[in-house]
Amino acid sequence: MSANHTSIETLRWVGDQDGHLVIIDQTRLPTELVEIELRDADAVWEAIKSLRVRGAPAIGIAAAYGVCLGLQGGGECDEADFWRRLDEVTAHLAASRPTAVNLCWALQRLKETADQHRGQESVALRAALLAEARAIHDEDRQMCRAIGRYGAELLSDGNGVLTHCNAGGLATADYGTALAVFFAAHEAGKRLHVYADETRPLLQGARLTAWELQQRGIDVTLICDSMAAQVMREGRVQAVVTGADRIAANGDVANKIGTYQIALAAAAHEIPFYVAAPTSTFDLSLSSGDQIPIEQRDPAEITHGFGRQTAPDGIQVYNPAFDVTPARLIRAIICEKGIIQPVSEASIAAMFADKPSCS
Amino acid sequence: MSANHTSIETLRWVGDQDGHLVIIDQTRLPTELVEIELRDADAVWEAIKSLRVRGAPAIGIAAAYGVCLGLQGGGECDEADFWRRLDEVTAHLAASRPTAVNLCWALQRLKETADQHRGQESVALRAALLAEARAIHDEDRQMCRAIGRYGAELLSDGNGVLTHCNAGGLATADYGTALAVFFAAHEAGKRLHVYADETRPLLQGARLTAWELQQRGIDVTLICDSMAAQVMREGRVQAVVTGADRIAANGDVANKIGTYQIALAAAAHEIPFYVAAPTSTFDLSLSSGDQIPIEQRDPAEITHGFGRQTAPDGIQVYNPAFDVTPARLIRAIICEKGIIQPVSEASIAAMFADKPSCS
Repeated sequence: MSANHTSIETLRWVGDQDGHLVIIDQTRLPTELVEIELRDADAVWEAIKSLRVRGAPAIGIAAAYGVCLGLQGGGECDEADFWRRLDEVTAHLAASRPTAVNLCWALQRLKETADQHRGQESVALRAALLAEARAIHDEDRQMCRAIGRYGAELLSDGNGVLTHCNAGGLATADYGTALAVFFAAHEAGKRLHVYADETRPLLQGARLTAWELQQRGIDVTLICDSMAAQVMREGRVQAVVTGADRIAANGDVANKIGTYQIALAAAAHEIPFYVAAPTSTFDLSLSSGDQIPIEQRDPAEITHGFGRQTAPDGIQVYNPAFDVTPARLIRAIICEKGIIQPVSEASIAAMFADKPSCS
Repeated sequence: MSANHTSIETLRWVGDQDGHLVIIDQTRLPTELVEIELRDADAVWEAIKSLRVRGAPAIGIAAAYGVCLGLQGGGECDEADFWRRLDEVTAHLAASRPTAVNLCWALQRLKETADQHRGQESVALRAALLAEARAIHDEDRQMCRAIGRYGAELLSDGNGVLTHCNAGGLATADYGTALAVFFAAHEAGKRLHVYADETRPLLQGARLTAWELQQRGIDVTLICDSMAAQVMREGRVQAVVTGADRIAANGDVANKIGTYQIALAAAAHEIPFYVAAPTSTFDLSLSSGDQIPIEQRDPAEITHGFGRQTAPDGIQVYNPAFDVTPARLIRAIICEKGIIQPVSEASIAAMFADKPSCS
């Protein structure tokens, strides 16, 4: 495992038009740092579905490159065939993780790009799509830095902070959303102590967040999800920052299961609860969080999660991947355009008046 | 694994004065049902420390028999030697789990029994101690039934209920405290659906509670600890019932880590939160939960929980075994003498006026 974080890239495109995508297989962390090559859209679908690449922004980037992979090969092709394949591959990739809106947003951007080049030869169309995927990737890097810059202002030297799941570099193109806030504060000389929830069932906090913070030399303590309220009660935490998978027009936030419970605990202790997410995470077509579809996942993630069976045979399991935190529990949303506070339909509309809804 | 719950005994004394203790090794459940023989006090200490036997009432019973084991052998012995050994073995056993007050309570009862027989021959003293350990064991069976009877009145047919950790038959001599409430309601013909938190880090909910409920034919769904608030938000739960490891004079309850977070979530959803525990769990020498010592456990329980490393090497870990739920979040405490409601210093004092404090 490399201790040099600057050499770690969550995902990268190798080569040109007929290149391929390389990602860190996040299911192997923290004990192994392994990169895998994805050479067709199915491989990208599988990598997203299996959480080899995860985190809303990173999923969006991977899906954009996945469209390029799905349209590779065959040189010049029939125009009707190109558009049929584009529809097929975007529909397929969109179904890999139903909650992450960035996925739909990235796919929509690629379809719009293709539309703008309608009538051109398929080689030119494919070049335009790869350029757009690269633009999404580049914009994400800028987004992470901007979120970090805005969010760092909310933290003070000496703060204890808590986060859930992984909204770090591994969830994005660069250094994350929630973790970007910590990284930027740290770079600005503010000493932080981070409490990282392990985040059952898939332990992204233990495997990924703890690893990323450790790699960057930030003081981090791992806890179980059930310990967050106790850590707050003991006065160890002055702010909570999490990412988001989808944000409705009223500010309700879908994020990793357990986020809502932590927001309730933060409210009970009068600790500010912040969400850090790019504008691509907003889905203004949804008036509230009640309309956000919640992905249900495999029971085996809970019953056989640690390499050993930990529940009786035949047990019923409920395994929602996400929950919805109502806007009233969120002190502010940190996005790359600035800080939305208070969180309300009006304040969101004011910042995102020009944002198209996800279709 | 036996499907016949009536054949399962959490712990039993085999033989007479020179007999031994047999317990179910709960670290092997739910995939293996294995009994182990404990033939000296050290073996009992190890079994308590390692959670082979766990749950406040069961720990008390095991410790009482552990004293008997620690005083076995040698036939008639010197009086001074007997009292020295009694002090040693009780001090040793008391240190195995610092939070569970039943442990101290049971050991205190045995010391008082010995005092009542002071001056008698050591054979007679040992007989009195075994009789007292058996009395503690028998009283615990009665206690479970009484708690079940009182608690079942609080639930309605069709209720969804949620519990944390394992306060079932495996935590007691018979059919539990929190689970006794479900078992008694079920036997009274009330249909329940139980949501069992898996209870990280040691997964007593997944391994033990889910197994016990399944064995008794009660509808149960396993969830991660972080999902409790979401399950409440979806309207699936009408009551929460947990056990307790120690209850202060003002009604603050120490119980498995995560209980406090669930109590906060229940309060936010206006769902009644009940604690089921025998009177032996009260420690009236403590005015509030702030005085309850909280056991810190091995970081490896979190980082290497179930056969696999799930966090990076060298990560800092915070692993409190318990938390304290303040009395204001508890709708009622169900004990074998009845229901304490509201939960306050006055209502507790009224019910336990004759209860000695734990020294």
